[in-house]
This record gives sequence, C-alpha cells and structure tokens, in this order.
Amino acid sequence: MIIVMKMGASKDQLETVVKKVEELGFKPHVIHGEERKVVAAVGHEKKKTDLYDLQLYDGVEAVVPISKPYKLASSEVKKGRTVIKLPNGVSIGGKKLCVMAGPCSVESEKQILETAWAVKKAGGHMLRGGAFKPRTSPYEFQGLEEAGLKLLAKAREETGLPVITEVLNQRDVELVEKYADILQVGARNVQNFSLLKELGQCKKPVFLKRGLSSTIKEWLLSAEYIITSGNPNVILCERGIRTFETATRNTLDLNAIPVLKKETHLPVIVDPSHGTGYWSYVIPMAMAGIAAGADGVMIEVHPKPEEALSDGGQSLTFSRFEELMGRLQALATVVERSL
Amino acid sequence: MIIVMKMGASKDQLETVVKKVEELGFKPHVIHGEERKVVAAVGHEKKKTDLYDLQLYDGVEAVVPISKPYKLASSEVKKGRTVIKLPNGVSIGGKKLCVMAGPCSVESEKQILETAWAVKKAGGHMLRGGAFKPRTSPYEFQGLEEAGLKLLAKAREETGLPVITEVLNQRDVELVEKYADILQVGARNVQNFSLLKELGQCKKPVFLKRGLSSTIKEWLLSAEYIITSGNPNVILCERGIRTFETATRNTLDLNAIPVLKKETHLPVIVDPSHGTGYWSYVIPMAMAGIAAGADGVMIEVHPKPEEALSDGGQSLTFSRFEELMGRLQALATVVERSL
Amino acid sequence: MIIVMKMGASKDQLETVVKKVEELGFKPHVIHGEERKVVAAVGHEKKKTDLYDLQLYDGVEAVVPISKPYKLASSEVKKGRTVIKLPNGVSIGGKKLCVMAGPCSVESEKQILETAWAVKKAGGHMLRGGAFKPRTSPYEFQGLEEAGLKLLAKAREETGLPVITEVLNQRDVELVEKYADILQVGARNVQNFSLLKELGQCKKPVFLKRGLSSTIKEWLLSAEYIITSGNPNVILCERGIRTFETATRNTLDLNAIPVLKKETHLPVIVDPSHGTGYWSYVIPMAMAGIAAGADGVMIEVHPKPEEALSDGGQSLTFSRFEELMGRLQALATVVERSL
Amino acid sequence: MIIVMKMGASKDQLETVVKKVEELGFKPHVIHGEERKVVAAVGHEKKKTDLYDLQLYDGVEAVVPISKPYKLASSEVKKGRTVIKLPNGVSIGGKKLCVMAGPCSVESEKQILETAWAVKKAGGHMLRGGAFKPRTSPYEFQGLEEAGLKLLAKAREETGLPVITEVLNQRDVELVEKYADILQVGARNVQNFSLLKELGQCKKPVFLKRGLSSTIKEWLLSAEYIITSGNPNVILCERGIRTFETATRNTLDLNAIPVLKKETHLPVIVDPSHGTGYWSYVIPMAMAGIAAGADGVMIEVHPKPEEALSDGGQSLTFSRFEELMGRLQALATVVERSL
Repeated sequence: MIIVMKMGASKDQLETVVKKVEELGFKPHVIHGEERKVVAAVGHEKKKTDLYDLQLYDGVEAVVPISKPYKLASSEVKKGRTVIKLPNGVSIGGKKLCVMAGPCSVESEKQILETAWAVKKAGGHMLRGGAFKPRTSPYEFQGLEEAGLKLLAKAREETGLPVITEVLNQRDVELVEKYADILQVGARNVQNFSLLKELGQCKKPVFLKRGLSSTIKEWLLSAEYIITSGNPNVILCERGIRTFETATRNTLDLNAIPVLKKETHLPVIVDPSHGTGYWSYVIPMAMAGIAAGADGVMIEVHPKPEEALSDGGQSLTFSRFEELMGRLQALATVVERSL
Repeated sequence: MIIVMKMGASKDQLETVVKKVEELGFKPHVIHGEERKVVAAVGHEKKKTDLYDLQLYDGVEAVVPISKPYKLASSEVKKGRTVIKLPNGVSIGGKKLCVMAGPCSVESEKQILETAWAVKKAGGHMLRGGAFKPRTSPYEFQGLEEAGLKLLAKAREETGLPVITEVLNQRDVELVEKYADILQVGARNVQNFSLLKELGQCKKPVFLKRGLSSTIKEWLLSAEYIITSGNPNVILCERGIRTFETATRNTLDLNAIPVLKKETHLPVIVDPSHGTGYWSYVIPMAMAGIAAGADGVMIEVHPKPEEALSDGGQSLTFSRFEELMGRLQALATVVERSL
Repeated sequence: MIIVMKMGASKDQLETVVKKVEELGFKPHVIHGEERKVVAAVGHEKKKTDLYDLQLYDGVEAVVPISKPYKLASSEVKKGRTVIKLPNGVSIGGKKLCVMAGPCSVESEKQILETAWAVKKAGGHMLRGGAFKPRTSPYEFQGLEEAGLKLLAKAREETGLPVITEVLNQRDVELVEKYADILQVGARNVQNFSLLKELGQCKKPVFLKRGLSSTIKEWLLSAEYIITSGNPNVILCERGIRTFETATRNTLDLNAIPVLKKETHLPVIVDPSHGTGYWSYVIPMAMAGIAAGADGVMIEVHPKPEEALSDGGQSLTFSRFEELMGRLQALATVVERSL
Repeated sequence: MIIVMKMGASKDQLETVVKKVEELGFKPHVIHGEERKVVAAVGHEKKKTDLYDLQLYDGVEAVVPISKPYKLASSEVKKGRTVIKLPNGVSIGGKKLCVMAGPCSVESEKQILETAWAVKKAGGHMLRGGAFKPRTSPYEFQGLEEAGLKLLAKAREETGLPVITEVLNQRDVELVEKYADILQVGARNVQNFSLLKELGQCKKPVFLKRGLSSTIKEWLLSAEYIITSGNPNVILCERGIRTFETATRNTLDLNAIPVLKKETHLPVIVDPSHGTGYWSYVIPMAMAGIAAGADGVMIEVHPKPEEALSDGGQSLTFSRFEELMGRLQALATVVERSL
C-alpha cells in the first residue's frame, strides 16, 4: 500500500502517518520525492484495507493499493488452468471447446426435448434452460420452477446432455442442485453474496455470469467468495456489460477474455445471445469469442423463436445453430482447440 | 406498441405482421409513411411484451414500445404523493425533510450509542447502521449480524430514533423486520427479485437503493415488484451510479430526483456518502440533493471515521454532521420544506 | 512513479528495472514487500511518462503514477481562486454568482433582442447564444454564423450584457473574438487540441465545457493546454456526461463541482439545460448546482421554446427564467454568495 | 414520427397537437389506444426534427422517432458494399482483408523505415504512423509534424506500402493530403464537424475512428457529414469505447462489427491496439475482430516498444506482428476472406 502525501504536507503530518502505519502492524518506508513524500507500507495482505483510513489524515493526498485483492482465483497463486469435468465426459477449460445451448426458458416438455435433441444432433455438449427466471418486470413470465427442472432432467436422461440452469436465491440451491449438472448465477446476482456463499457449499460447479456493471476485479472477487466457501469449480461467463450504446442489448466485452486468461486459472465462456440481444449478431460474436480465446460459448436456441416466452429475439433456430456449429468446427483448429 | 417496417418491405410481409398483431389480440392500424410503413397495435397493456417477437418477422425493422412498464409506482396511475409514517412521528415524503444518519457498520455498543445520541442531538430523524454488510471481497468485515440488530434496537430504545438497516437475502427478512423500522435493500440487490417479493409480504417500509447500473425505469420496476407483492411503502434512494469517472466512488445522479418526482409518487432520498465516497464532498452534495427536490438524505456518521471498520473515508465526524444539519436547516425554507 | 513487480519476479528482472530507472534519470528505491517487490522512482515530473514503458519489462506487473498530470490548473500549484473580470463589471469565480442565459441558437434579431432584454430584466448577467452550431446530423440547422455574431454584438450594445458564444474551430477564433466577451468550447471539442492551443493565444476568457466522456483529470488537462499556451482565464462548465441512463439527455455530474473546487482554482459553471435535456428539470438542477458550490449557471431561454430551431425542449420561457432567478436569489444567501 | 399523448390528455390538447402537425406539413393519424392516444405524423424526412418541439405541448408525453437519421451511409439507401481502392492495388472492404500497421508516432527515419520493411515483409498492406499527435496532456510528445509526413512518404517510396496518417484540424487537411493515401480522423475529432466538412472536399479516402463515447448512430452521422460534403470514401474504425472497466484502456466494442455490417455499406476496420491498450491482448483481439466480420485490422508495431515515444505498451514487436499475420492467414479462410 502506498500513502501519497500532499505537496507541502508538514513534517508532523508525515510523522503521524508513519506512526499510524506502524501501529497497524506495517513497516513504513518513506520516499522523499521532488514534489512530495510517499510512504510505502509493507506487511500482511489481510489487514491492508485498514490502511485506507489514512486518506482521512491531514496532509494525505491518496492511498494507492498495489496488490490484487483476489487470491484463490488468481493465476499468480494457482499455476495451471482449472479444467472442470462433468460425470458424462464433458469438460470445460481444457483443449476441447464446450458449447452449451438451449432455450432461454423451459416452456414445455415438447419444447425442451425437441431443442435438446437438436442441440445434441448439431454437436452441442450441454443443454441450457431456465426454470427460475429473473425478469425486470413483475408482469413477465417467471419460469416453470421445479416443473421446469424436472423437464431438464428428463431431457438429460433422453439425450445424455448434461444440464445447466439458473438458481436465483440461496433457498433454492439444494433443489436446483438435485437436478442440474452446473448451477448458473445470473448477472443480477453476481454480488448476491448470500447466494455465493451457499454455492460454496455445493458439490456441483458454478457458472458465474458477469454483472451488468461488474469490473473484472469485482467479478473475480465474487468467484473468490465461492472458492473460499469451499467450491473451487467456478466457470466465468462474459455476457456483456452495460454502456451508453443502445444499438445492442449489452456491450459484449471480449477484451475480458484475454484479461481473464492472464489473471485467473478459471475457465471462461462467452454468451453472445445476451451479449448482443439480436439473433443476427450471435453467430459472428460467437466466432469472435472463440477467436479471442474463450473455452466455449453459451447459445440461446429455440424451436420457434418468434413464439418464445422470453428472449425470442436473440434465439437461434435449429438450422442457424447447426450453421454456427459448422463454423465453430472450422475455427477450432485455427485456435488450436477442438470441438 | 409500434411496429416499424423496413424500407421496401413487401406487401406480403406487411400483411403477415398485421395478421399476427390481430392473432395476439390487438387492433392493427397501418400508417403509410413516405419512406416506410408502420403498424400501431392497440390493445391491452398486459400482453404487450408478446409483440416484441414481431421483430423477428421478415420486413420488420423495429418494435417500439409506447407505454411505461410500471403501473402501481407510476404517478400517472396514482395521483398524490406517498407519505410514509413511522410509529414515532417520523414521516418521509411529506413537507418535512427526513435525515437518516449513522455509521456504515454497527461495530460496538459504545460506537452505535454514541453515534445515535450525536445524530439525535444534531436534529437527525433516524439512525442507520449496517448489521449485515455486503462486501465486494470475502476478506472484508461482514457485519455483527443479529448482535448488531440488537444494538440498533437498544439505540432506538435509548434515543427514540427509529432505525433503518439492510437485509441481504429473503431468509433474513423476518429477523431484520423484528428489529428495524425500515428495511433497506442495497444497490447490489436491486434486482434480487426473490428478496423483493419477500419484502412485499413485509409490514414495514422498504428503502430501495438504486443499483450501480439501474436505469430509472428498471429501478421503478423493482419497486413495482415490492408493491405488487403487497407492500406499498417503498422509499427510493439515489446513491450514485457507475460511470467512467473515477475521481469519485460513484456518480451521484441528481437528475434522477426531478425525474422521479415526475414519474412516481414514491418518496426519494439521496445518499451523498456512497454517491461521492469522500467525506469532504458529502456536505455540498447533500445540499445539492435537497435543492434538487429530494425528501431527505442518508448520511454516514462515525465517532472516529479513521478507525471505522468500513467506509471510514466517506463518513462525517459528529461536528461535521452538526454543520451539515445547520446548513440544511437554512436550505429547507428556500425549498419550502422544513427540517 | 511506482513500479510494481510480479509475485516471484526474479532478482535479475528487478535489477534490470532498477538500472533502467537510473538510466532514465530517476533515483530508484526498492521496497521488499511480503508478497512482491516495488520500486519507487524519484525525480523530475516532466519525464515521468518515460517510466510507463517499464510495464513492458519482464517481471513487471504495473506502473502506478503518483503525481497529478496537470500543473497550472492545479490548486496545489496556484493558491487562491481565479476570478475572471469582464470589462463591464461582471465577474466569474468571486463571491457573486454569475447567470448566463439565452437561446441555444441565435435565430433572428427579434428573437435575440427580446431574449436579451428578458434576461437583463430578470437579473441575468450575460447573454449566451450560438452562431456556429455543432450538430450531430448534417441535416440540422447549423447556425447563422457571422450574421449571428453581429446580432449578439447588437444585443450587447442595447442591453449592456456581455456575450458568450461558441467557436467551432481554430480558423474562426479571430472572428469570434472580435464579437464575443467569452469564447465557448463545446463538449465535442474538449480535446480538439488545435483549437485549445489557438485559444491560448486569445485575449478573452475561454469557457471550456466538459466532454461527454471526459474524466475530470482529462478536462483539467484540456484547460492546461489553454493555460500553457498563454491564456490563464479559463472557466469550466459541467454540462453532463454520457452514461447508460436514457431518462435524461445527459447525466449532470454535480459531484464534479466539489471535486473541482478541491482540485483547481478555476471557476466552475453548471449547465442544467444540456445536463438534463428537459426544461422541466432545469430549475431544480440549477438550484442543485449552486447548492453544490458552483460559481454560476448557464441556462437556455427562448421566447417560444416550441418554435426554437434547436434544443427547444430544454429551454425555459421568460416567465420560468424569472422564477428561476427568484429562487436562486433566495438560495444565494444560504450558500454565502450573492446574485 | 410518433407523438405519444399523456394518459388523460384532453381532447383540446390532442387537437392542438394534430393542428400543429398539419401546420408543419405532415399528415396526422390519430390512434386511440386503450390507455392513451398516439399521433403518427407522416411526411418528409428532412423536416422531421421540427416535430420534436411537440414534446413541449401540454398533454404530450414523448415524441418518438421512427426513421434512421443517416441516409447516404445507410445500407437501406445504397445497396452493395463500398470497396475502397488505393492506387497501388490495395483495397478495403472487398473479399481481401487489409492489415495496416506501424508505430503510434513517426519518431525517426530509421524507426519508420525499419518498421515499414518489417510490416511489408510480414505481409502487411499499409503503413500507419502519426505525424500530428493528439495527446491528452500538453506535456507529452506532439509528433514530428511535416517532417514526419515526409518520412512516411519516403517509407512508401521505398517499400511501396500506401500510407495512412492522422489529420488534427481542417487547416492541415491540404498538407496531410499531399503525403497520405488515407487521412485518419482520430477518436477525439469524430464530432469536429469543421474537420469533417473539410474532408468532404478531399479526394483521398477518410478513416474515421469511433469516438470514445460515440453511439453507432452518431458515428454514422459523422460519416454522413463527410459523404454529404462530397467524399463517399469513408472507412470506419472501431477502436474501443469508454466504459467503467479499467482493466483495459478502452472496451473494444466488437458488437459494432455485425451492427455496422447490417446498417451501412462502408468498410469496417478494428484497432485492437487502442481497443485494449496492452500488447499482450492485441493478437487475440485482432483475431476476434476478423472473426466478427471486420474488413481488416490496424496494429501498432514498433522496433523497440519499450523505447517508443508514445503508446509503447500497446505495440507489438516485429516478431509478434509476424506471429499475428500467420494466425490471421489461417483465420482468413475460415471466414471466407483472403489475406
């Protein structure tokens, strides 16, 4: 931690800061710059946030952190990449790319089974589908709940595809874990710390979507909550952030892919359906995500997008999903991956 | 709902859209513009989201909503302003301004009692203090939990100040309701719909902070969740949004005050402590909030900000809080309010 | 400048950095933290940007700046506030608040004279009006150009109000200077460095609007361009930044007022007309700006807003402007200013 | 244009709006919805902005535009894609991808010639290099100016690579046009309309970078300024927008690529150097840009990035540029392009 003194801070003010740094259990190093003085505080990471209060001392201009706040999620701490293996052979984070696809919401047995078979046939690896839906308006469709989970389980039984679905609150974690192979945390819950801690107790992997306004640092700290609570199997999903641009539903931040590849050992998936909000942009942005280095994509697919109960506008038809799979197949070898 | 056809859309495409609009139970009006055709769909608000799927039809350029999605929170629907009255005479949303103050976190009996008396003495109306703390990093202080709630209740007993405190998840609502006069929903939980629905069942008022990236429309829809679930007593709190500017912790969006005064009948409070992140900006921005028309302010106050376990940098000392109260007193008459 | 080494950076990597710091003319101080090493580079401010290249060296995690990049605009360098005095007794930045008002565009002699008299009568201090208009679309009204400047000069002659108007490019500086008392730089030109340098040569004060996405730091560096080029009379104008919120045209960042009051000695004006985009929000936000500590406001006023050639929607009528002046009068004493 | 009346607007208010719509030369269509009335105004696009003033009328809730404001840049107006051909056989916007590379700033003859040869050898198509540099701080290196242009011309002469360089203001257009094959408008000048109009008179193609906070719509309107002023040869360059994320210098908005491919016929280039700000993210993001459908990339390359006078941190070495070209080669066939 670096404490920057104001230009013209007095000797007394400097000494007060130095003494406080010592009291807090750190070793102070004073650096006498040409313009101003700076105190470097050396010591244990854990208590470093205490030092922030020094910004309240007279003569102090700013307190500047040096270290990264996340530890277990950091590639500085854990060498080698995390590869998450599901019971039936699907793995995420290794050489093989993972394609998760399915409808926004589970709507009926017919809809989810048809889609599951279409995903399977086209070469997809996992089935997605929402049973509990977080909707901005209370007047919108909120999901089939447990009935939806049962339909997902049935689709897994028939097709063999493992299943990923969202859990909205800590009370439902046990229920969702009974049916799902991976539990998804949606963008709006990325800092629902009660839920994150509960998921730390869970035996199944967690799929953590980035929040609409999460910095990458905050997002990794949310992953850190799950890991420190006992569950090391976290998958990160870039799904677009909120910016001033309204031509798309969100701004898919693909920069996050190489940043995360450097900062963390956790796998990274891209969701171009939410990241763009329009089906016609999904294929190019799925391609872009994989070209940027992602470990896979999550794609919304629906038998009849124009009749979907949610997010129809960003869903691919079965034939467009097949087209995407063909194009990803060609791309995979260029980025030294397989599909 | 307005469906905009592409330039050069065919007659068949137009007819398909018109037919679909009818099927969905709306009355279509076709307008033949010089550049393109437009279909206005007239009918029941509730089912309007179905019309969005028309953007998937051939020849359709865009689907443009006309009505506002929130109803019970809207000043178009309910005339007259909502005034929330607490048992002990404090009211929020009427002519009298309401000042809520206290520490970010409840830390000890001494700290909270000292602060409560200082708030009371300076003329504050309510005591705030966090017992459950949502913290970005799992390594930071997470609050005293129920012990903190008990200390708040003790402070109320001694000073007579009603108490506001945050609830983090639906499981704790019953517990927090036992102790608090108002239940606070933090910025990170503004779209935690499970929590919002639970609070709809609650008998006490709910203080709903704006999310870091909530539009005003989404924020009002979150209030709508609470109201439609049965609790009409919602207070909105502007506490800053996330933007590119890093000179302050958040960007306090005071524009939201006159916008909300126009759009909704619910009371609006400003939190300049979180809205700026630096104590030295709190007084001017509290003044600005009231000048913009807010019904009150929420202020972080701490006996020794430099020793606070959280957010010390944005907390006022007792004497600075007194200064603020004096200045608000003078301002109140200018804006035709009282303190 | 602080160079942060990676965890596990080798001794050789550290030595290479230390050597380079010395080569660049700085004195290195190595600090051996518990997790990683840090090198503080002490020396002349001017050459500090050279040190950024160290982030390319092996073993270096980050290079962190300590000092502020602006000098002449900084309140650390110049003590006391800048007060700008115009020939006819109007001053900006002193105890007296300054109200600048007038139409978005100069449209006709009748319009500008009528408005000037209304501004004068209500107690305004300066007349604003655009002769050169920067418009997002080439199909919109672009201003009366020199004819507009002449009308402004005529209005000044008749009413005695000094005049502020925008200059769009360096080629027009001489022309605009001939007519205007203050030259305005619009938000879109805040980093038009050719224009800023030209204005540094100008004898009249410069009114520098904040860019839609300018950080406060960048904005002060733009002021620094003008000052280092020879013109110390710069007035800053907060007029809203671009965020995700669409309920208002821009997000007026009033936090910027206390931040600027701390960071710089230059006067600060608030423009609630552009800052909100709707006339009905202008009065509350003008009040908020002054309550936050601004030295004045700039307000769009038009005889018939519904017939304005630009920005009618955010313009006040004469009677509403009078109402605003009355309210500012009352507010001024509360903030220890006069009107 | 759609005029939305307030709920409960009176018959008189509606009639006033209808009359005004007629006065402005449009044909009004009144639609009687269940909740409110709506007036559709049919007529000439050119005068549509007049209708915005209706939002000031009593009883009017909002005025909603339907048509797109750009015409000549729109793919609705011009069918077929614009392909820009340079004298020496390089083309932009066709099947063949275009790679522009070179240093941020031209620094010396040795530097630019070495780089030009390295770009040529690796298979690059154009040489980039700044002679006039827009720098945030007046204390940073501002470019070699005309001497730099001459060095670029020399590099072209020796290697045969056409040259692209930035022009900062309208006064320099003639000078820069003498030396450059393409004139670049930087992000900060995207709404410098004086410059855009001047470039409309220019015979050479214009490379228009997106502004830090330009919406795609505004950006296309800036292109429209150039085209309506007489120069149809505009190339768009996505170089990142400003968001809350600070892990990268900007947020590269690759969503813009498929959006632009749909909205406009103009070629689109991606600049991952500015879009990320770190050389280690440049290769993955260049790949992502091409995978998303861009017509080429602009890459900063420097013989010794750690000694660059500007932007060294985001520049590739020669060998990393060669690696990029190899990877783009493999990718090109997957996206049905050639290199």
